[in-house]
Amino acid sequence: MKKFFGLLLSLALVLSLIAPAATAKTKENNDASKDKSIHVQIVLFDGFDLLDALAPYEVFAAAGMYSEGALTVELVSAEGRRSVPSGLNGPALEAKAVLDPNRPGIILVPGASGKPAGNSEDSIPNVLRQAMKTSLPDIMKQAFDNEEVTVATVCGGSLLLAMKGLLKDRHAVTNHIGMAALQAAGAIAVDARVVEDGPRLVSGGGVTSGLDVALYLVERELGPQIANAVEKLFEYERRGTVWRAEGIAPIDFEKSQRASEKE
Amino acid sequence: MKKFFGLLLSLALVLSLIAPAATAKTKENNDASKDKSIHVQIVLFDGFDLLDALAPYEVFAAAGMYSEGALTVELVSAEGRRSVPSGLNGPALEAKAVLDPNRPGIILVPGASGKPAGNSEDSIPNVLRQAMKTSLPDIMKQAFDNEEVTVATVCGGSLLLAMKGLLKDRHAVTNHIGMAALQAAGAIAVDARVVEDGPRLVSGGGVTSGLDVALYLVERELGPQIANAVEKLFEYERRGTVWRAEGIAPIDFEKSQRASEKE
Repeated sequence: MKKFFGLLLSLALVLSLIAPAATAKTKENNDASKDKSIHVQIVLFDGFDLLDALAPYEVFAAAGMYSEGALTVELVSAEGRRSVPSGLNGPALEAKAVLDPNRPGIILVPGASGKPAGNSEDSIPNVLRQAMKTSLPDIMKQAFDNEEVTVATVCGGSLLLAMKGLLKDRHAVTNHIGMAALQAAGAIAVDARVVEDGPRLVSGGGVTSGLDVALYLVERELGPQIANAVEKLFEYERRGTVWRAEGIAPIDFEKSQRASEKE
Repeated sequence: MKKFFGLLLSLALVLSLIAPAATAKTKENNDASKDKSIHVQIVLFDGFDLLDALAPYEVFAAAGMYSEGALTVELVSAEGRRSVPSGLNGPALEAKAVLDPNRPGIILVPGASGKPAGNSEDSIPNVLRQAMKTSLPDIMKQAFDNEEVTVATVCGGSLLLAMKGLLKDRHAVTNHIGMAALQAAGAIAVDARVVEDGPRLVSGGGVTSGLDVALYLVERELGPQIANAVEKLFEYERRGTVWRAEGIAPIDFEKSQRASEKE
């Protein structure tokens, strides 16, 4: 046991010797970023999915830790400070503040947790319909109108916004289960793990894609070194190319096939 | 909007038509497993890491949903029902019951969240040392003595057990940052994403490996179909071979090299 603590201590010593040099090297960057630290609001609503919300939360929190606070993150709700139950009788989380659409930064909307289909009270479609009755959709509309806000979604979060009509003709993704519904609600559903429509709308696919959404935003806002440090700490490597409506579009071979069959 | 709900409804209809057939097909399995449903206790302690605990929680909860309750999961603490703060000033979670080492099933110990090194109050080594002062290590010793319990760990969870001397000469893994400390504490540190030592000790590496630990245990306890269904819902594919002390051991080329250099 003594040997173990000795090792921990020597590890700490080595690291504390290395740390000041690294700090000095990036000091200029940090001083600049501190003046305008990025604030992330993660929006909880009754029946939200735990991982949709907390995987990004923890990525952002670790990014803040590694960047000396260049990014901050908090859990919020449309109703303000309150205990918000997650879906499927999961644990509740405490929202610390009211969702503020006027605050510059990132607002992330998670999906719902529940039975993937059906009309029972605890089905995902029903949980989303309940959330539609709160003030959340209206506040998110204000966030869309604020040019200093990037809206991010994970899983069913994009469906919630689409149901309010906020994703009309916007490129977005959701859990594969909800892709047809997303398209039916007016969005252009794109089959990618993360989709960026303009710089102000970033959506992710199913549950675990929240890791990829958050890591992409960390790289975009703070640079690749912080994103890489978080990846190493979490033993996760970001997956998939972030789809954007840029560059060369690939040939749609199925469409070409249908056209040639018609001729 | 009408069209959207219509689509949701028709999706629900299609799914409800498919569901009964699928249910009938696996009914026999479910009836058998219901009599002895697997119970998973996830242990919270002050400063625990959110994702370490909740990624497995959500995998187990979804497995329970897909298997009609063949598996149940709850958050517990050594002190019983209480609000347990996560590390780095993160949100608290409510433990619903006292950790019971006599209850058959799975007990999962997450790691701590904090600064990866150093001796500050919020450093991971210090958070783990604080947890060592609670009754958690003693209760986990009882769990190790219970042949009907599988102990699982994520990230620093294995370090916590090793600090109590419970992993002496046992194969285990932790976050790569803690591997030297794990070895120094008497365990045989194995560089794999998930390590199974006998059937009753399953450890995982860094944070996100909790997904892999839980998916492996779901397959082991409920079979591959449930594990696959959860993977698809979460849009995650289990990573890495689960290391076990079985089969042919690979040649250690570095050791061979050192031996031939000596000759």
